[in-house]
Amino acid sequence: MTFSPSPSCPLKSLKRPFQGTLDRMTILEQTIAAIRPADPAAVAEARAHQDRLTKPRGALGTLEEVAIRLAGAAAVSPPPLPAPAALAIFAADHGVHAQGVSPWPQEVTLQMVGNFLAGGAVANAFAAQVGASVTVVDVGVAADLDPAPGLRISKVAYGTADLSQGPAMTARQVAEALEAGITVARELVDQGARCLITGDMGIANTTASAALICAFTGQDAAVATGRGTGVDDKTLERKIEVVRRALHVNGLTREPDAAPRTAQAAPVAGAAPTGQAAPFQTVASAMETLAAVGGLEHAAIAGFILGGAAAGVPVILDGVIAGSAALAAAALAPAVVDHCVAGHRSAEPGHAVALGHLGLRPLVELELRLGEGTGGLLAYPIVCAAVRVMHEVATFDSAGVSDKEA
Amino acid sequence: MTFSPSPSCPLKSLKRPFQGTLDRMTILEQTIAAIRPADPAAVAEARAHQDRLTKPRGALGTLEEVAIRLAGAAAVSPPPLPAPAALAIFAADHGVHAQGVSPWPQEVTLQMVGNFLAGGAVANAFAAQVGASVTVVDVGVAADLDPAPGLRISKVAYGTADLSQGPAMTARQVAEALEAGITVARELVDQGARCLITGDMGIANTTASAALICAFTGQDAAVATGRGTGVDDKTLERKIEVVRRALHVNGLTREPDAAPRTAQAAPVAGAAPTGQAAPFQTVASAMETLAAVGGLEHAAIAGFILGGAAAGVPVILDGVIAGSAALAAAALAPAVVDHCVAGHRSAEPGHAVALGHLGLRPLVELELRLGEGTGGLLAYPIVCAAVRVMHEVATFDSAGVSDKEA
Repeated sequence: MTFSPSPSCPLKSLKRPFQGTLDRMTILEQTIAAIRPADPAAVAEARAHQDRLTKPRGALGTLEEVAIRLAGAAAVSPPPLPAPAALAIFAADHGVHAQGVSPWPQEVTLQMVGNFLAGGAVANAFAAQVGASVTVVDVGVAADLDPAPGLRISKVAYGTADLSQGPAMTARQVAEALEAGITVARELVDQGARCLITGDMGIANTTASAALICAFTGQDAAVATGRGTGVDDKTLERKIEVVRRALHVNGLTREPDAAPRTAQAAPVAGAAPTGQAAPFQTVASAMETLAAVGGLEHAAIAGFILGGAAAGVPVILDGVIAGSAALAAAALAPAVVDHCVAGHRSAEPGHAVALGHLGLRPLVELELRLGEGTGGLLAYPIVCAAVRVMHEVATFDSAGVSDKEA
Repeated sequence: MTFSPSPSCPLKSLKRPFQGTLDRMTILEQTIAAIRPADPAAVAEARAHQDRLTKPRGALGTLEEVAIRLAGAAAVSPPPLPAPAALAIFAADHGVHAQGVSPWPQEVTLQMVGNFLAGGAVANAFAAQVGASVTVVDVGVAADLDPAPGLRISKVAYGTADLSQGPAMTARQVAEALEAGITVARELVDQGARCLITGDMGIANTTASAALICAFTGQDAAVATGRGTGVDDKTLERKIEVVRRALHVNGLTREPDAAPRTAQAAPVAGAAPTGQAAPFQTVASAMETLAAVGGLEHAAIAGFILGGAAAGVPVILDGVIAGSAALAAAALAPAVVDHCVAGHRSAEPGHAVALGHLGLRPLVELELRLGEGTGGLLAYPIVCAAVRVMHEVATFDSAGVSDKEA
């Protein structure tokens, strides 16, 4: 495929601040250019088809919206069955761990990679349940990993720098991590995947997620920061302070002394992002934000989401790490949201903020706060069921079933 | 298996009002006697095991409670994997249809049975997605059905009488329908099913469900009655009036002129039923209530739930029809609730009332209002995933993963 940027390509704005990384921009440019917004004709046809099926109109609730959304993304109704599915778990470490934002030792990231590869984690059990493949991607674990089946080593760095002291990553690191995610998405689709599910592993990564969510939505740190995998009150207070400092140090605070805003997340399927405009208007500034307060797995997951959308397959987002990465992806290519399904809403408060901003309604709400892709995996059979209805259910006419009286 | 009732067997109370149907009580008596409450040792062991697994404690939210619940029901930890699953769709018609409570013609019940048998309904698509078998049971369709693969004919009557004019069923009909449900559950388990999922088809059956929910919980008709498969404001008003009349005519109104109560349903996993005591204290009165305002499929589903619990397999409840039937089953044998999982919460308001009374928290909340077992089928992979975790996930010790710092 040859790539010729369209006149309106937003990548132009990249050339100034990311001069040194232009050689790495090609894959990202291609990917962004390949992402199309939902096709209105397919959406209309899918909606009309739902109303012909042997069920009361609207009786499948949110599932009808999921099927219609996937038809728009695929630009065809009914949309293809999203099977098989592939989970990619992006693993990385975080310099901000030094601030005591997590009760877990940093080496748990590495240990859990071993657990994934041995098939012993919850993500493995859930993936087995729904028939999804599992690929673990090292984009930034703070140790050298031995090659192993199911492991892809795309290490960009041995963890990020401490985001509360300055930028977590360099521009080049962000570009490399985005590219790594895009490449994994492309390869999984080339290997036959027709649905991608995001996963993550990185001790302290809910801190980076909260900072990204604040930066992209304008929400206050006290609202967007949560207990992650289980911090006590004192640690939560410190974590909020660290997020606030990170935003300030990196010049991402719009109103440094403003009172905390109230959470206003009310996700509605297909709704437009909330009124509060993100302060980031260009691709370059989105990448700068990722560099400032993101993690290597956040950047890679943003690339993975973009890569899946560009390859024409739906992407099921997992929890708060995916939600914050999706904000970055949407800042890079707004149409990417049309290709995403929110798998679940985690117990982390920032996740609802992110989903509200993206206009996505989660399918599963069971107070999970594990990550790894577990919420996305739980949602996967629901997404399949929604699409299957479009292919297999009879119409009133074909089944000889009487319609509702007018 | 020989049956000798225990001294505390509540069936004694049956002998007076249900004298004529004593010959049919044997199966019900056996079934009720075989249902055991959750085993506390298995519950404790399952809870302890959850805390040893390589995930932050509590990180699987509601799924941990589901796995613990199933361990208690099975009296062993980890509980057996609930696979394979069998869906039974109980179909019947309703005399109350004559009151104009549904915009759908009554013959749609029969037509949808044909659609199920041809594999063209949403329940078929969802069952295929999750690998569940589908059995359709005619317990009261108002027409004669030809034998067909996948159809079990256990017809008790050609529909119920109009519950707004007097009892919908005779005592014998209730007993026969309960027995039909128990028998289907037993046979499916004998054939290898390790999880049962309830399904229903019956035009106007949300009216009977609302009346049952009011009768068993004391809730007001205006709170428990909803739009079913989509009635307009005028029809909803009439439907509420019909439910109110049914309760009055059948002597089931505790305070005929009382102001509507406010819905107070706040289902919490494992919580005790809400404080408001149901007016029914005996097995006999539960059966009288079913006879007064239930449907043949409600009675059969109550039997199916009891039969599954007695056979030692979990039962996933579908929507408002299953919820109201479960209230009847719980009145017959309170311990049956320990064997139930609430698959979803439907858009029908009475469903939340029923689940609150049963102390069950739904797994899926996606505004479905279709019935057929669709919500139960969507929840099934989630239940499997919850149990799979108990079998397949490594412990901190076995995986060499560091635990959280104290």
